[in-house]
Amino acid sequence: MAGLRENFIAKVKTEISASALEKMNRKTKPPGSLGVLETLAVRLAGIQQTLEPKLTNKRICVYAGTHGVTSESVSAYPSEVTGQMVLNFLSGGAAINVLALHGGIDIHIVDTGVDADWPDNLLRQPNFYFRSVRRGTSNFFREPAMSQIECEQALEVGREQVRAALDDGIDLLGIGEMGIGNTTAASALLVALCGLSPEEAVGRGTGISDATLQRKIEVVSGAFEKYSPLCCEPAGLYWLRVVGGFEIAAMTGTLLEAAKACLPVVVDGFIATAAAAAAFRIDQRSREICFFSHRSGEQAHGKTLELLNVEPLLDLKMRLGEGTGAALAMPILEAAAKILCEMATFESAGVSEVIGVTGYHR
Amino acid sequence: MAGLRENFIAKVKTEISASALEKMNRKTKPPGSLGVLETLAVRLAGIQQTLEPKLTNKRICVYAGTHGVTSESVSAYPSEVTGQMVLNFLSGGAAINVLALHGGIDIHIVDTGVDADWPDNLLRQPNFYFRSVRRGTSNFFREPAMSQIECEQALEVGREQVRAALDDGIDLLGIGEMGIGNTTAASALLVALCGLSPEEAVGRGTGISDATLQRKIEVVSGAFEKYSPLCCEPAGLYWLRVVGGFEIAAMTGTLLEAAKACLPVVVDGFIATAAAAAAFRIDQRSREICFFSHRSGEQAHGKTLELLNVEPLLDLKMRLGEGTGAALAMPILEAAAKILCEMATFESAGVSEVIGVTGYHR
Repeated sequence: MAGLRENFIAKVKTEISASALEKMNRKTKPPGSLGVLETLAVRLAGIQQTLEPKLTNKRICVYAGTHGVTSESVSAYPSEVTGQMVLNFLSGGAAINVLALHGGIDIHIVDTGVDADWPDNLLRQPNFYFRSVRRGTSNFFREPAMSQIECEQALEVGREQVRAALDDGIDLLGIGEMGIGNTTAASALLVALCGLSPEEAVGRGTGISDATLQRKIEVVSGAFEKYSPLCCEPAGLYWLRVVGGFEIAAMTGTLLEAAKACLPVVVDGFIATAAAAAAFRIDQRSREICFFSHRSGEQAHGKTLELLNVEPLLDLKMRLGEGTGAALAMPILEAAAKILCEMATFESAGVSEVIGVTGYHR
Repeated sequence: MAGLRENFIAKVKTEISASALEKMNRKTKPPGSLGVLETLAVRLAGIQQTLEPKLTNKRICVYAGTHGVTSESVSAYPSEVTGQMVLNFLSGGAAINVLALHGGIDIHIVDTGVDADWPDNLLRQPNFYFRSVRRGTSNFFREPAMSQIECEQALEVGREQVRAALDDGIDLLGIGEMGIGNTTAASALLVALCGLSPEEAVGRGTGISDATLQRKIEVVSGAFEKYSPLCCEPAGLYWLRVVGGFEIAAMTGTLLEAAKACLPVVVDGFIATAAAAAAFRIDQRSREICFFSHRSGEQAHGKTLELLNVEPLLDLKMRLGEGTGAALAMPILEAAAKILCEMATFESAGVSEVIGVTGYHR
């Protein structure tokens, strides 16, 4: 029965996408001349199952988590920065606050497992979600980052945000993160799930010494060797559990749930892409609702996007995370939807159309 | 005296840019991790000569002009579309209307020389500027596109918009265009000013036949051969006059005047870039205030941007013109300015900073 229903939905989506493309081609512009905006609009029409897609209400969920692997000295910044940045998000001073406000985007800050003591007033802040699985993952170089139950809990934290978004009438969700040490976790995930070598997967960040880089590669490489022999299906879930992070699993959970709900999601940068790689392995349908915001400056990101066969919207050499790339890309997606809804057609505007050419040059 | 004043201004700009970079590096993020946004913010601080650059008030000028060279059958769409699209801009149905409204950007529609009869009510519309030099350029394949006086007039149309922008408190101006036949004019300009071969400079647009493409190359190549021997300095002005368009010259005028006024300008796509190439040849200072919005899908644009040694912000395969690329890029520039003004510093947010590293990875 589920299969029949899915086939029916797929058929409706295909029909709507075809009608959306036809609608787009009646707009007062040469067919195809808005490039990626046109493709985005047609995809959004398919996902929202309407010829009038709208992305008025936008939200980014910033998932934060502490990483046990920071004990291996893989990061130049102390692990406490994760908690300090959560406070910064909640007082409005971080880059994501500035960019989300600029883009008319609501933000939710979600503690998926941060090693910090929160003051009471913080716990009462309406956009703060205290959903700590544990005060940090275990050091995956020594033992699995989390237990199976913890991994499920973290996924559920992300799923809950999709349900909340639907309740709140959100049209477009973004996923971002904060977690000192999480490029190491993401690199390990990508070695396991996308076949990158540890040397390809591990980035230099900015200005870290050769020695630190070497250590980071050793940790990723060691973890891959340690956990590979025990890998069980689904691989996406397995690797999330053994080398992932609570915030990474939460992002994966968001994508899995959003796919079921046909809610479009904008994936931020390198870490969020690793979460997407895991989601794609668990449920291919999650691919359909994902929009990749940008190609980050982190070394392995470009290659990863290629391997996942996705094209990001922006390439501004950003490598901050927090959802900052998503915040810049979301207005572009909204613009694409508006093109399909608001532009005049050749007939309505009284503009001459050339019949029989698939486009024009001027 | 003018030289002394300019040296003084250059020194102030350099000092402000250095202070802006220092300010940027105290923000709660790894230094450099916002990539291009940081570079943009520092440049904007230098241009506006303040550590608190702001781009609140944004406007795009869409210059329209008819091209005599359309008689050579270089375009698949009839020349009348130029006037029809002006009507579409003024009734709000074009892509630029949708995207400008979305980005909170004001638009001015400027008739620099369109072959159309406007109804009276149009002439009274407050955002319409009737500044027609002539009802279309001459066919440059046969004779120079305009006279010297006409070229000066067209430049002045663009300069006037800068003065109006300053009067209206505009912080960021964008330039876009409409003119059936103007890729042919732009290609000819780029052959002359950037040394592209006619084959490199002429694009297929979308779906035009091989025969039409050949004709377009012949026209561009023929014009270059015809006018080269008579070239006089400044070359930017000469080529604008003999192969340019009224709307192209107006864009060049805007850049020249904006450079004097230190007003940042966002350059749209292929045609606007040709206008910028002319401006750079006439006055190098115009380079400093230019921000290139996107790499368009028009064949020669990527190569031209490389030759001009500039990096565009977006690459969304758009090739519509009208200022649509500028409309998408302007909010990104504004975001960059806000980062410098609104983000917390490490001290103010109580976030641990790592001294002695030029960046961090997580």
